[in-house]
Amino acid sequence: MTKNTSTGLWGDSKKQTNSKFESCELNPWSIISNDFKKDQILSCESIFSTGNGEIGQRANFEEDYSGKQLTGNYINGVYFKDRTKVSWWKNGYPDYFAKMVNCPNWNRLRIFVNDQLLDIGSCKEISFFIRELNMKEGWYKRDFILEMKNGEKLKISSKRFYSIKRKEIGAIKYSITSLQDDTNIKILPFIDLNVKNNDSNWNDPFIKTIDYELDKTNSFVISKVIGTEFEISTFSNTQFYIDGVLSENIIPYSTSALSATGKKEKVIANCNEFILNNNQELIAFKIGGYCNSNNYSKKELKNKSKITLKNAVNLGFDKLLNEHIIEWNNIWFHSDIQIKGDTKSQQGIRYNIFQLNQTFNGSNPKLNIGPKGFTGEKYGGVTYWDTEAYCIPFYLGTKNSQVAKNLINQRYDQLENAIKNAKKIGLNNGAALYPMATVNGEECHNEWEITFEEIHRNAAILQAIKKYVDYSSDFDFIKNKGIEILIAVARFWAQRVNYSNQLKKYVILGVTGPNEYENNVDNNWYTNYSAKWCLKYTRDSLFKISNDKKVYDRIVEKTNLKKHEIKKWIEIENNIHLPYSEELNIFIQNDGFLNKELIPAEKIPKNERPLCQNWSWDKILRSPYIKQADVLQGFYYFPDDFNLKLLENNFNYYEKFTVHESSLSASIHSIQSVKLNKLDKAYKYFLKASRVDLDDYNKEIDQGLHITSMGGAWMSIIEGFGGMKITNGMLSINPKIPKNWKQYVFKLNFRNRLINVEVGLKEIKITLLKGKPMELLLNNNKINIA
Amino acid sequence: MTKNTSTGLWGDSKKQTNSKFESCELNPWSIISNDFKKDQILSCESIFSTGNGEIGQRANFEEDYSGKQLTGNYINGVYFKDRTKVSWWKNGYPDYFAKMVNCPNWNRLRIFVNDQLLDIGSCKEISFFIRELNMKEGWYKRDFILEMKNGEKLKISSKRFYSIKRKEIGAIKYSITSLQDDTNIKILPFIDLNVKNNDSNWNDPFIKTIDYELDKTNSFVISKVIGTEFEISTFSNTQFYIDGVLSENIIPYSTSALSATGKKEKVIANCNEFILNNNQELIAFKIGGYCNSNNYSKKELKNKSKITLKNAVNLGFDKLLNEHIIEWNNIWFHSDIQIKGDTKSQQGIRYNIFQLNQTFNGSNPKLNIGPKGFTGEKYGGVTYWDTEAYCIPFYLGTKNSQVAKNLINQRYDQLENAIKNAKKIGLNNGAALYPMATVNGEECHNEWEITFEEIHRNAAILQAIKKYVDYSSDFDFIKNKGIEILIAVARFWAQRVNYSNQLKKYVILGVTGPNEYENNVDNNWYTNYSAKWCLKYTRDSLFKISNDKKVYDRIVEKTNLKKHEIKKWIEIENNIHLPYSEELNIFIQNDGFLNKELIPAEKIPKNERPLCQNWSWDKILRSPYIKQADVLQGFYYFPDDFNLKLLENNFNYYEKFTVHESSLSASIHSIQSVKLNKLDKAYKYFLKASRVDLDDYNKEIDQGLHITSMGGAWMSIIEGFGGMKITNGMLSINPKIPKNWKQYVFKLNFRNRLINVEVGLKEIKITLLKGKPMELLLNNNKINIA
Repeated sequence: MTKNTSTGLWGDSKKQTNSKFESCELNPWSIISNDFKKDQILSCESIFSTGNGEIGQRANFEEDYSGKQLTGNYINGVYFKDRTKVSWWKNGYPDYFAKMVNCPNWNRLRIFVNDQLLDIGSCKEISFFIRELNMKEGWYKRDFILEMKNGEKLKISSKRFYSIKRKEIGAIKYSITSLQDDTNIKILPFIDLNVKNNDSNWNDPFIKTIDYELDKTNSFVISKVIGTEFEISTFSNTQFYIDGVLSENIIPYSTSALSATGKKEKVIANCNEFILNNNQELIAFKIGGYCNSNNYSKKELKNKSKITLKNAVNLGFDKLLNEHIIEWNNIWFHSDIQIKGDTKSQQGIRYNIFQLNQTFNGSNPKLNIGPKGFTGEKYGGVTYWDTEAYCIPFYLGTKNSQVAKNLINQRYDQLENAIKNAKKIGLNNGAALYPMATVNGEECHNEWEITFEEIHRNAAILQAIKKYVDYSSDFDFIKNKGIEILIAVARFWAQRVNYSNQLKKYVILGVTGPNEYENNVDNNWYTNYSAKWCLKYTRDSLFKISNDKKVYDRIVEKTNLKKHEIKKWIEIENNIHLPYSEELNIFIQNDGFLNKELIPAEKIPKNERPLCQNWSWDKILRSPYIKQADVLQGFYYFPDDFNLKLLENNFNYYEKFTVHESSLSASIHSIQSVKLNKLDKAYKYFLKASRVDLDDYNKEIDQGLHITSMGGAWMSIIEGFGGMKITNGMLSINPKIPKNWKQYVFKLNFRNRLINVEVGLKEIKITLLKGKPMELLLNNNKINIA
Repeated sequence: MTKNTSTGLWGDSKKQTNSKFESCELNPWSIISNDFKKDQILSCESIFSTGNGEIGQRANFEEDYSGKQLTGNYINGVYFKDRTKVSWWKNGYPDYFAKMVNCPNWNRLRIFVNDQLLDIGSCKEISFFIRELNMKEGWYKRDFILEMKNGEKLKISSKRFYSIKRKEIGAIKYSITSLQDDTNIKILPFIDLNVKNNDSNWNDPFIKTIDYELDKTNSFVISKVIGTEFEISTFSNTQFYIDGVLSENIIPYSTSALSATGKKEKVIANCNEFILNNNQELIAFKIGGYCNSNNYSKKELKNKSKITLKNAVNLGFDKLLNEHIIEWNNIWFHSDIQIKGDTKSQQGIRYNIFQLNQTFNGSNPKLNIGPKGFTGEKYGGVTYWDTEAYCIPFYLGTKNSQVAKNLINQRYDQLENAIKNAKKIGLNNGAALYPMATVNGEECHNEWEITFEEIHRNAAILQAIKKYVDYSSDFDFIKNKGIEILIAVARFWAQRVNYSNQLKKYVILGVTGPNEYENNVDNNWYTNYSAKWCLKYTRDSLFKISNDKKVYDRIVEKTNLKKHEIKKWIEIENNIHLPYSEELNIFIQNDGFLNKELIPAEKIPKNERPLCQNWSWDKILRSPYIKQADVLQGFYYFPDDFNLKLLENNFNYYEKFTVHESSLSASIHSIQSVKLNKLDKAYKYFLKASRVDLDDYNKEIDQGLHITSMGGAWMSIIEGFGGMKITNGMLSINPKIPKNWKQYVFKLNFRNRLINVEVGLKEIKITLLKGKPMELLLNNNKINIA
């Protein structure tokens, strides 16, 4: 993809963004904010999101809040097919956009203080407000003192997490301390069924309730996703403690109490009442979560939920939290990057690693990574080329390589749909075009200039396969499965080119490159070069396989591969048009680029930035301004194909037109800057990549975080400053260190080994923590680690 | 615009078309169809549409019909603002698409035969079915014999028209003859309020009923258009005659009778009952129509409706028809084209002239011409560049030149909005971009590649001004108003170009030419050449005005025109890039065109045509196939700028790639073919232009007729075969005649004269029917007519 960092372009509404999220405290392990500002509520809901890789939620209030909020609880892999909405239908558009379902909200507590509704949005005062997202231990906490309109004061503290150990369980510890005597607290824990997807084409409901069950402490709701028929079980259990003693003080279900806000609400709730004296504390432990029909048969869904909930409740909040922290310790052990001397960088990179793991941590081979994870609804929560280009490197480096393999396997499983997709644009003979956005291999995206034309994504899939094989040395994957993807993609390019009689070259017309600020251009250099590379990589792989005649013959038979096809591939490789300016010694981004009005981006008036929020689309398209690395994305993928001088020329030329309005841009620029020894620039881009959300660079995090681009921040350190690459099958490290840092340390998972790399101002230390001894290149010298 | 002749592209649904409309009988003055086929109902509703230039209707049944139909009654100028629907919002998109409101349907009659509902869709048999649209007299008639399921037979005849004399009145004569004794006929004339716009973005209701009134014979309903607040009064009066005697046999309003179909319907109705013997005839005269708040204050709307209806009812059906026929005679006197020896051509061209007049005949200076007139809802019924490019020539040639002037005046009145529109794409200093689709100068269209980029429409406005001034010699229009449009458009082009350092030329990047099968291309030759012409035409006009210093100074002051602007215009004119291939001696449609896979369109498999219904959009874009004349549109507008050899080369080159999937294509090709003396080809294209609907070339007339392109058919004869042009202010005629024709005769309105031109096989006769003697060029020789 290429997520816009603004609403203007990819948004489905004209709404301009909220006010910018104001920076949190600098802290190496926590995100802490002391502000309670109503115009920051949506942004904070995003920033403080929690998840466990399968289930996640925005940091919504448990209490009532009468201001604007965006309630969000999502389950990876549970989606609605939202009927396509376009202004004018183009032949070949997909039928639907798959969208993660916003689930019933089990977090809710409705509280009455002396019969007055506790509403965070309209109480008299909120003071000593503090939020903390503790990344080390994976929990989110709020503390504050609240004064009701009637004058009653309460001290409230809420701590919650989604268990990284038990993928269906979340837990909340909600504490109310009265700051006066005789405070009547009526408290109703409930599941809010009145949730809707905010990003909906037709305002259709996505789910309906088909069953529910309620007893004194437990609630269960079974919902069905309309159309896709997924079933979701939402459940919760609440227990109250006063002075550390479990209370049995349950009042039957009361609808009247629930409608106190005057709104008609669909809820499922118990009701409880307490009288608190001064300094007396009431604690509600709410344990809840979701089971769904991807993991259980529909028949046993409710029973499994009951067991799941019961087991968690029996363990209790503290023990659940404890096992959760142990799991996080384990994740951090493998994936932490320590940066000494610069808390800003330290916090930034940890936030990225933390949120990536909250979104996806490899626990389930069927899941993937949506651009906003569980933090917002934009992009539907489905899979883009972000996964291959920005996330797979991270998971390869920090997890068992099976995790990346699972992600690539999904593309293998979807090959048939990718072939159907290529047929839609008129290609055949097993050519495959992977979708721009998908949940099951079917295309979801519906802007013709992206859907049909941003075809470079096909190359990213092959790059990811190459990266996986280089990392794991698991060439068998290519032999067994990958080669079918390779051949299908090679066939795609071989048919998608045409021969230009005028140029006497093969050309690729009508594409959109990574720079989506050009549409329907001819001969995007990055796309053409990637096509050439795909053809060669496929041929090379076939050649390597051909040693094993039996395997080779099986593949040829299965794919019906003909010799003349391979001959044609070679002809295209050798004769593809690669726009180049001799005068400037740069690759030309695409035909016609040099006819533009080439004024550097720094001359654009500040109030016209970001362009996508201020300029009409045609003005953007005819301008030279580049949304994200395009030619430079090629230098990222093919670092060994060009010399430094050529990189420098291209970097210097294109950087001045690049506006970085995609969150995916900064990391690639950081990595190239390191190569060119522009370490200050690299550092600046690294900060932008790693703190795009924490510092809300583009005033839009109210809608969710830029999850997939967080992988780019990781790449900026490992492949950028760390200079990590794999050359001829050998791990190679060439570290540099920006001047703000005293030391940085990262670990790499590489071929069943765990390698620790410490880069200091004066020395570099590489340690093998796990696995067999190996040889690697450090600053181009072979060394052995044991 | 450029209406697609298929649903695929411009349609808002994926639905494929209905079965093709089967040709009607060849008849010089009538459209006659003897078929009653359910799959032709929608097509016939379009073909047999009636209107009077202000109000119109599809040829819906008066009776109940349980099959699929598309009820449509529309008033020009009464529209709803349908909130924009797009998949991804682009900055600068309009807020709404203006759509003509589908009004309450006053035509309806519900009939029960011996208490059984008469339903055309489910009766036992329909026989001797015949429809006739009489173009000479402007009425539509249906005759048939119907057998009910119970066996009762009726002979039914219905004749109706919208009065071209009384713009708010329509009339129906509906006759039922029983073919057995003792037939109980219950008949309920009603106004159906249960109508909705079929083309609606959000399925919102467009109108609501705010008042109604009902007596024994009259019904009035006042509706308000939601949002725009237009008010519509729908009214009808019904009188029954048995054996020629007025019946007073009225039964009070009965809802139960109305709900006989089982459907919940909002209606306003009277109820009447009769017993007919064998061969006894019951005639219902239903007179009705619409008044609206564009013509009356809302306060007096109902009273004015009452007076309007009463006057018409007092006159009665026959006299209303009579005065209507007289009006049509007058229209035909000025606009008829007679073709001897070829009924197919004769019927075709008359159908075009007839439908254009039904859609717009100049009666109201505030109205304009929607691409589908009153025959369908596509394109919203709003104004496109079709008006200037295809309709104004027709109205100039067949009406008082005030009619064309009124149309151009609308653009003058909308100049301020066109300036706002240009601001949206970043231009300023009074530059104007006229909208792609508009009802009041505000842009309605919302595909970026059209809305923001199909900017050649700006030149068409100036071409229409030039044509009007050449025709009328009313240069004062330019002095008083037109020059402001010219300057604003010149300013647009001067800012929309940029200088290419590479080419050392001014370029226009990111446009869509008339060929909408290319989007976002650079240097579309037609657009660039048109820009150059606009600059020159503006300069020339200013120069001419400068003789009158007072006027000139007023203009300079009002527009704040600077000398350096004019200097810049000259520089651009002299240095604009006009893509040209020396090798082929053709203009290149746009940069990169020659890199395409240049396979002639005839090689495309038949089952892949039309492309827009079969190919994905990207495949169309990267192909060389041309939707409608593009370079050739330039040869149409600038015939004197290029020699015949150049025209021939371009024609031969581009014709083979042209798929004519816009209804606007054939006429331009016909005109150019005549120039190249390819008369057979010209004839073929003329037939395609003039009979696109009657022969349903593109299987889509179920959705309405191609009204604006009908002007092109007229141009094919007058400017094509007739060779009419105005050279240096002098009328010039160079007629040729295709071999199928024995003679053709047309009239021209020219500078307050009426000129009759008869072109025979051997002789050409030009007669001045009205006005002062004049000189003209016949086959390039000066002659005088008196």
